[in-house]
Amino acid sequence: MLAFGEVIDTARRAKKTSAGYDLTRLMVGSEGTLGIITQLTLKLSGIPEAIAGGTCPFPSVEACCNTAIATIQSGIPIARIELLDALQVRACNLHAKLGLPEVPMLFLEFHGTEASVAEQSERFGEIAAEFGGGPFTWTTRAEDRTKLWEARHHAALSNFALRPGAQIVATDVCVPISRLAECVTETQADIAESRIMAPIVGHVGDGNFHLTLLVDMSDADEVKRAKALSERLVKRALAMDGTCTGEHGVGQGKMKYMEAEHGPAALAVMVSIKRALDPQNILNPGKIVAV
Amino acid sequence: MLAFGEVIDTARRAKKTSAGYDLTRLMVGSEGTLGIITQLTLKLSGIPEAIAGGTCPFPSVEACCNTAIATIQSGIPIARIELLDALQVRACNLHAKLGLPEVPMLFLEFHGTEASVAEQSERFGEIAAEFGGGPFTWTTRAEDRTKLWEARHHAALSNFALRPGAQIVATDVCVPISRLAECVTETQADIAESRIMAPIVGHVGDGNFHLTLLVDMSDADEVKRAKALSERLVKRALAMDGTCTGEHGVGQGKMKYMEAEHGPAALAVMVSIKRALDPQNILNPGKIVAV
Repeated sequence: MLAFGEVIDTARRAKKTSAGYDLTRLMVGSEGTLGIITQLTLKLSGIPEAIAGGTCPFPSVEACCNTAIATIQSGIPIARIELLDALQVRACNLHAKLGLPEVPMLFLEFHGTEASVAEQSERFGEIAAEFGGGPFTWTTRAEDRTKLWEARHHAALSNFALRPGAQIVATDVCVPISRLAECVTETQADIAESRIMAPIVGHVGDGNFHLTLLVDMSDADEVKRAKALSERLVKRALAMDGTCTGEHGVGQGKMKYMEAEHGPAALAVMVSIKRALDPQNILNPGKIVAV
Repeated sequence: MLAFGEVIDTARRAKKTSAGYDLTRLMVGSEGTLGIITQLTLKLSGIPEAIAGGTCPFPSVEACCNTAIATIQSGIPIARIELLDALQVRACNLHAKLGLPEVPMLFLEFHGTEASVAEQSERFGEIAAEFGGGPFTWTTRAEDRTKLWEARHHAALSNFALRPGAQIVATDVCVPISRLAECVTETQADIAESRIMAPIVGHVGDGNFHLTLLVDMSDADEVKRAKALSERLVKRALAMDGTCTGEHGVGQGKMKYMEAEHGPAALAVMVSIKRALDPQNILNPGKIVAV
């Protein structure tokens, strides 16, 4: 729904089109500042014939990231590859009683036929071993996979168990995959120096990772250290040609990074689009861009 | 480069971002009406470990399309699936001396490991047989695959051989894959009734197909029939929730369909974006949208 109240369809059901400007992708991620999404059509993917999934421990998050990079570069069509640092594994163990070793881990999933998921799993295991990881234990049993992914999905929630009473401040960045190991490693060192409890989870196939800062909001010094840590995280990602947010969005909190990320002229284009579509500034005003 | 002369980067190298409006996809397909693309960064895909490719003859284009639909629905991660109708195969034979049977065909390619391309090829052959197609002859020999795809890439050029002296008028539409067989079949009947020579090639995995009309421009009646055929093609695609162009773009020729495809309010959004980014209307004026 547009600012003037008209309802538009931004796309038809054809898989691709070259008929004019891509309004779907303009609206997606605009956080309600250009229009309100009142109806969504999703593209569904079929359930694969076979699914294999499992966990693989590593000596460091760097080894996790390098394994992810090598796996993708080797052409394995991996369906999911998720990083959890040791602290995040501990939180998941506390919450979901997984009994996993509390070291950096990758959670993985492979889709395909019975033969191809076995082949993918074996090859991944070989790559992981090259980086000192393993053993890679995998299964095609649905119950075991479900337990694993439920724990992963509850990662954010499980962090409450790590420090009861603390407030959760979530943030994310995304960097080119080639810089991921470096970015996560530097961030881990920064977390330690900052004396902040902040488990890391990452959608490492995309170069995207999340920090969950567990902050005692009554401790002014800790709040200050947490804010500084978050700011350095964004600057680190931008310096690596990354983005200040891979998934969470801009809202108000990350507006201050928009010019550094996009440059003044590109930001001015965003402002002009906002003004054109919402001249009265009634759609989620004060978010993403200042008009 | 924007209308005012500033050069912007529309994206950084991170694989995904949620930091503001998606200017990359706004520019892509805008045909120079919002800015001029002076530099492009492409995402490269690795060369697969193994590639299998081949051709499969069918009794009808409908059988080709239904096979494509069933193949995709079965989850085979097909890399290329291209439809050529009998006339297009004849043109390719004339041009590239392929010696193929002059019946509707699918040209296919599978990527993966040696084991997985063999598995994909076998499964595709079984699906094709269910729709009366085959035999599916495939190879992993690079020379044979190259010859095939060169012929496919020269399909448009090869059409000159079908009717020397005729002008080539190319058009394309894209429909939901579930309507593809119906759309192509109706279009073939329309071509026959219109007495126009018009081979069909299709990127059938996307529901996208091209008509190459070979028209004697000195014959006013033939020109009229060709135009009417093109118009009916677009209307047929729109009626099936498709788009007036999957790949070719709007330019001037398809501006008249924009309102029917998008509706007046969505078209007005496109106009307002054009006005915001190019207030003096100096960027490829008179294309896509009238301002």
